[in-house]
Amino acid sequence: MALWHGYRPELLTDLYQFTMTASYWKEGMHGRAAFSLFIRDLPPNRAYFVSAGLQDVLAILDDFHFDPDSIDYLRSLGRFPEGFLDSLKAMRFTGTVRAIPEGRIFFPNEPLIEVTAPILEAQLLETVILNTLHLETLVASKAARCFAAACGRPLIDFSPRRTHGADAALKTARCSYITGFLGTSNVLAGRIYGIPVFGTMAHSYITSFLHEMDAFRAYAAAFPDNTVLLLDTYDTLKAAEKAVVIARELQAQGKKLRGVRLDSGDLKALSRQVHELFCRHGFPDVAIMASGNLDEYRVEDLLRSGAHINLFGIGTRLGVSADAPYLDMAYKLVEYDGRPVLKLSPGKITWVGEKQVFRSYDPSGLMEHDTLGLKQENHPGAEPLLVPVVVQGRRTAPEESLADIRARFQADWDRLPEAYKALRPDKIYPVRPSGPLLALQERVRQARVGQEIRS
Amino acid sequence: MALWHGYRPELLTDLYQFTMTASYWKEGMHGRAAFSLFIRDLPPNRAYFVSAGLQDVLAILDDFHFDPDSIDYLRSLGRFPEGFLDSLKAMRFTGTVRAIPEGRIFFPNEPLIEVTAPILEAQLLETVILNTLHLETLVASKAARCFAAACGRPLIDFSPRRTHGADAALKTARCSYITGFLGTSNVLAGRIYGIPVFGTMAHSYITSFLHEMDAFRAYAAAFPDNTVLLLDTYDTLKAAEKAVVIARELQAQGKKLRGVRLDSGDLKALSRQVHELFCRHGFPDVAIMASGNLDEYRVEDLLRSGAHINLFGIGTRLGVSADAPYLDMAYKLVEYDGRPVLKLSPGKITWVGEKQVFRSYDPSGLMEHDTLGLKQENHPGAEPLLVPVVVQGRRTAPEESLADIRARFQADWDRLPEAYKALRPDKIYPVRPSGPLLALQERVRQARVGQEIRS
Repeated sequence: MALWHGYRPELLTDLYQFTMTASYWKEGMHGRAAFSLFIRDLPPNRAYFVSAGLQDVLAILDDFHFDPDSIDYLRSLGRFPEGFLDSLKAMRFTGTVRAIPEGRIFFPNEPLIEVTAPILEAQLLETVILNTLHLETLVASKAARCFAAACGRPLIDFSPRRTHGADAALKTARCSYITGFLGTSNVLAGRIYGIPVFGTMAHSYITSFLHEMDAFRAYAAAFPDNTVLLLDTYDTLKAAEKAVVIARELQAQGKKLRGVRLDSGDLKALSRQVHELFCRHGFPDVAIMASGNLDEYRVEDLLRSGAHINLFGIGTRLGVSADAPYLDMAYKLVEYDGRPVLKLSPGKITWVGEKQVFRSYDPSGLMEHDTLGLKQENHPGAEPLLVPVVVQGRRTAPEESLADIRARFQADWDRLPEAYKALRPDKIYPVRPSGPLLALQERVRQARVGQEIRS
Repeated sequence: MALWHGYRPELLTDLYQFTMTASYWKEGMHGRAAFSLFIRDLPPNRAYFVSAGLQDVLAILDDFHFDPDSIDYLRSLGRFPEGFLDSLKAMRFTGTVRAIPEGRIFFPNEPLIEVTAPILEAQLLETVILNTLHLETLVASKAARCFAAACGRPLIDFSPRRTHGADAALKTARCSYITGFLGTSNVLAGRIYGIPVFGTMAHSYITSFLHEMDAFRAYAAAFPDNTVLLLDTYDTLKAAEKAVVIARELQAQGKKLRGVRLDSGDLKALSRQVHELFCRHGFPDVAIMASGNLDEYRVEDLLRSGAHINLFGIGTRLGVSADAPYLDMAYKLVEYDGRPVLKLSPGKITWVGEKQVFRSYDPSGLMEHDTLGLKQENHPGAEPLLVPVVVQGRRTAPEESLADIRARFQADWDRLPEAYKALRPDKIYPVRPSGPLLALQERVRQARVGQEIRS
C-alpha cells in the first residue's frame, strides 16, 4: 500500500515531464509558460460539468518539492544530467493559478484552470493536476445528475468497495457531497472531510444469525435510535412483516424504526407493497431506502413509475461514472515567453492564449450563454468565472469549506435552465469564442502554417 | 492530499462494517466466519479475468490495526459502546486466507479469495479487500486484452493523467506490467515497483520552441541515445521529413534515431507513409509508436488494416477499463461458526460454503474446464487453484516479485485456448459446480426457505 507509506505526489507524473524539463533546463529555457486545462467534448447524455478538485490541486502546489529519495530514483534512471537533478532540489511552485472555483457549472473548451509559471514548474505538474481535476470533475458531474434525478430525495454515496482505488473512494465521497448528497458510507471520508456517514447492515449480518428475526432484534437492541433493516436477504415481503414486529417492539420502548432498505428485486413494486404494509400497521413514517446497481437513470425511472422510495444509496455506477468513465480533459501550453502558441493536430485544436470565461444571465437570473475570451477582455454585465487562487506561489485565500463549495453548487444549479438538467438533454449550452480570441487564433494559426507546413 | 498524510487504510470502509461488528461484539458472536470473494458475471466482450491485487491485500492484512486517531473518530460518531471501541485497539488479523495467485486466469463465480477469521475481523476488512482486488483484477483483465490485440508488439501504459486517482494510476502500471506490458510512463510506479519507465516529449515541448526543428534538435542534443520525436503537432509528414534530418545528424555522431510517435490523425495511413519515408532515406529501423485514445479494439483494427506500428502507448481507456469500468465483484459470507449460509436475493445467488476451483487440462495442456467444488473435495488430475497465503495471521511465503507474477500470467496465457482470447469471444469457458456443492447448496437453500419464507 505504497500510498500510505510516504511516497510523494511529485513523482505521480509521466516520465516525459522530466525528459522535457531536462531539455528546457539544458537549453536555458526558463520563460513563463501558460497552460490551460479544459475538456474537449461532452460525453454522451451530458450537458454540463461541475468543477471539482481545485482544493486538492492547491494542496499539491503548496507542498510541491522533490525529496532526496525521489531525486535518487531519477538519478538511477541514468539519463538526467546532475545539474538538472540539482535544480529539482530547490524547486517550489512560484507561479500563478487562475481557476473556476469548485462547485461551479462549466462547459467544453472553457478553461477550468490556467497555470502560469516558469515552464519547468508548470510542465512537471501536468500529470498530477490532470489526474486530480479529471477524477473530481468527472464524479461531481455524475453526482449532479443523480441529484437531479432524485428530485430532492436524499442520496448517500455507497461506492467505496468498487471505486478505482482508495483515492477515488475518498474523492467520490467529497464530490458527491459537494453536489448535494446527504453523506457517504465511507468512514475515511467522514474522518478526513467531516462528511456525515451512514450505514447499518449487509446481508452477511442477516445470514450470520440463525434466523432473520434474531438479526433484526440484535440490531435494534444495539442501535435502537438508528435501526434500518435490510429486507431482501431471503424474502422481502416476509422480512417486511418481521420489520413491523420490530417497529412495534421499538415503539414499546419509546423508540422508532427509522427505515428499511431494499437492495434487489422489483424495487418499484416492493417499495409500494412494503410502504402499504407499514401504513396498514400504523407506521407510515418508516423510510424506505433503495440501493443496488442504481444510477441517475434508474432513480429517474423508479420515481416516474411511482416507486415509494424515500432515499437512495448510489454506489458503483456513481463512483466509476459508469456511463462515461473518463473526460477528454487536456492541459495544453497556450503561451510561452509572451508568445501565444497552439498545435494543429487534427481533431485536437486548442484555443490559444490565456483566457477567461464570461457568463451572461437572462433577466430572470438564469444562465444564458458564455463567451470564451482572452484574459484581458472586458465584457460589461457578464461574470468572469476564473479567479486568481494562487499568485506567485501563494494562495489568495485559505482553504474553502465543503459547506461553502456545496452552497456554490446549489447557487449555480438554481441558475442552470431546466433543459440542461435533463438526463438525456437535447440542447447544447452556447459557448461562443470572442472576436479578439478568434482573431488571435487565426493570426497564430496562419503564422504556424506558414512556418511549419508551407515552408 | 489526505492519502499522503498518514491516514490508515482500516478506515477505508463502509460504516456498516462497524455497526454490524459492534452488534456481533454485543451479542458475543466471535465465531469463525468464511467470506468468499467472486465476480458474478462477465462484462460484455469478456471471456476471462486475470487475478491481481493479492499482494496489496496481504500488505493491508499484515498491518491491520486501528490507530488511536481512528478510534477517536469512531467515538465521535456517538453510537459505538466504549467496550467495542476498546476491542478494536487490540485487533489484528488472525485468520486464514486462501487465494488464486496473482496473474492467473479465472472465471465468474470462482472464488478469487476466501477469508476465514473471527467474524469481526473478516467483516471489517470487506470494503478494503473488495476495493483492492476489484480495481487490480479489472485493470489486469483489460490489459490482457490489449496484450492479445498487440500480437507481440510492445505496449506501454500511458494512463496516469486520467486514471481515477493516484492509487489507480499506480495499480494500472502494476497490473498492465503483470499482463505483459513493456513498462509505463508512470514515474512513481517505476520508483515503487521497479517497472521500466518510458517517455520522451509532449506537444507542449514542440510548441514551446519557435520552430519544430529547434525542438527536435534540442531533444536529440539532450538525449542522443533515447530520441523519439513526436510528429503530429503541426503536420505529421512535414515533421517526418525533419525527423529524417535528425536521423542523419544523429548518425553523423554515431547515434541512432530510436523512433517517432504519432498521436492523432489516420494512424494507418500515416504510419505507412512515415515508415516508407524512413526506408527511402535508409532508416528502416526507426520505430513507429502510436498513441491517442487507443485500446484493444483500435490496436486490433490498426494491425489488421496493415498499419506499420512497432509499439503502442495505451492510456485512458486502459486505466479506466473504459468499455467495462467495473466488475460485479462481491464478498459474501458463506459459512459462520461451522454452519454453511447463503442469501436468496433474486439474481444474486451465492454458492454456499468454503470452496475450491479444480482446473482440468486437455492432453495438449490447454485449459478444458473448471469444477467449482467444496474446499475438501478431491479431483484427481485437476489442479486446485486456491492456495493458502495466510495461516493464522501469518503469510505462508514472502512477497512475490512482479517478475514471478508476470511469468505466471504468461504460463496461464499459453494454456488458454485461442477462442477465449478473441476481443469479441463467442464461447463461454465451462465452469461446473460439483455434485457435493450442488447437494449442499440445495440442502441449505431448502432449510432456509423453510425457516424464513414458508414459515
